Amino acid sequence: MSKRSLALREVYRLLEPGPVVLLSTAYEGRLDVMTQSWHTMMEFEPPIIGCIVSSANHTFGVLEKTRECVISIPTAELSKAVVGCGNTSGRSVDKFEKFHLTPLPASVVRAPLIAECHADLECRVSDASLKRRYNLFVLEVLKAWHKPYDGPLRTLHHRGRGHFMVAGKTIKLPSRMK
Amino acid sequence: MSKRSLALREVYRLLEPGPVVLLSTAYEGRLDVMTQSWHTMMEFEPPIIGCIVSSANHTFGVLEKTRECVISIPTAELSKAVVGCGNTSGRSVDKFEKFHLTPLPASVVRAPLIAECHADLECRVSDASLKRRYNLFVLEVLKAWHKPYDGPLRTLHHRGRGHFMVAGKTIKLPSRMK
Repeated sequence: MSKRSLALREVYRLLEPGPVVLLSTAYEGRLDVMTQSWHTMMEFEPPIIGCIVSSANHTFGVLEKTRECVISIPTAELSKAVVGCGNTSGRSVDKFEKFHLTPLPASVVRAPLIAECHADLECRVSDASLKRRYNLFVLEVLKAWHKPYDGPLRTLHHRGRGHFMVAGKTIKLPSRMK
Repeated sequence: MSKRSLALREVYRLLEPGPVVLLSTAYEGRLDVMTQSWHTMMEFEPPIIGCIVSSANHTFGVLEKTRECVISIPTAELSKAVVGCGNTSGRSVDKFEKFHLTPLPASVVRAPLIAECHADLECRVSDASLKRRYNLFVLEVLKAWHKPYDGPLRTLHHRGRGHFMVAGKTIKLPSRMK
């Protein structure tokens, strides 16, 4: 099923619930992807995301050099790939191949979308000034995609050490909150 | 049931899944609490949390002045109080009273724990230098509490506009991730 464009004002609704994400990069023709849970929305529109990437990660250096990435949101069905990408390094492993993830070309960045994920956010690093102090990259979402899905969305929320809470059931309360 | 001390090294396991939280403050003897979803872990130990609080919120000014707060994690049973605290302002409402939340004295900050929540993190603002640029308060957790619970933990994850995903079921995969 092909991906559809998603309005940027809707992006916070994907990340605010706190799902584990896959953060993909491309550098010198080589694709890589890491598992990531330490992120927060910082602004609604244009959507700004704060993302902590350890300087020990291969991705840290790639983000510094390319200042681009894609944040993709996996559903619960992808739990093995999520854990696999979190337990290996792009220095030695082609994770797209090893974990059967299918890269798709993005529209404005070189980093790839991931076919199996239900949403993808094309991002550029808008502020890298906090990377030394806090490993913090501030990202602006330039383009968002999602995949219509059947049934309730089930996302993964990492509790540490391979434990994931699965969020599925959604409740709705009267609210004026954005 | 009384709260028990939780080791600081375990704190990330509470916030990394991305639950909606209640952020409490105390200023000149007045308690207040806001609903908050834009947070991320920034360091494991001591636990550092990045927290976005809009400068339009009453809490922003209180955090500036007191440089202290408590982050409490509600379970799904508290959904009405969570939405209520997100739809009212501490400028005009005593939210603890209105939403039947019971403040308990904390150990190292003036802001209160919340009896009904399953975990509470006593925090001080360790870095307020990014509050103007990003509404970002960097918090250090000084003391953590949790409440043993029966059955699976169910937390709320805000998808915007009063829609909450409920995370409950937990799966475990072999992983070397922290």
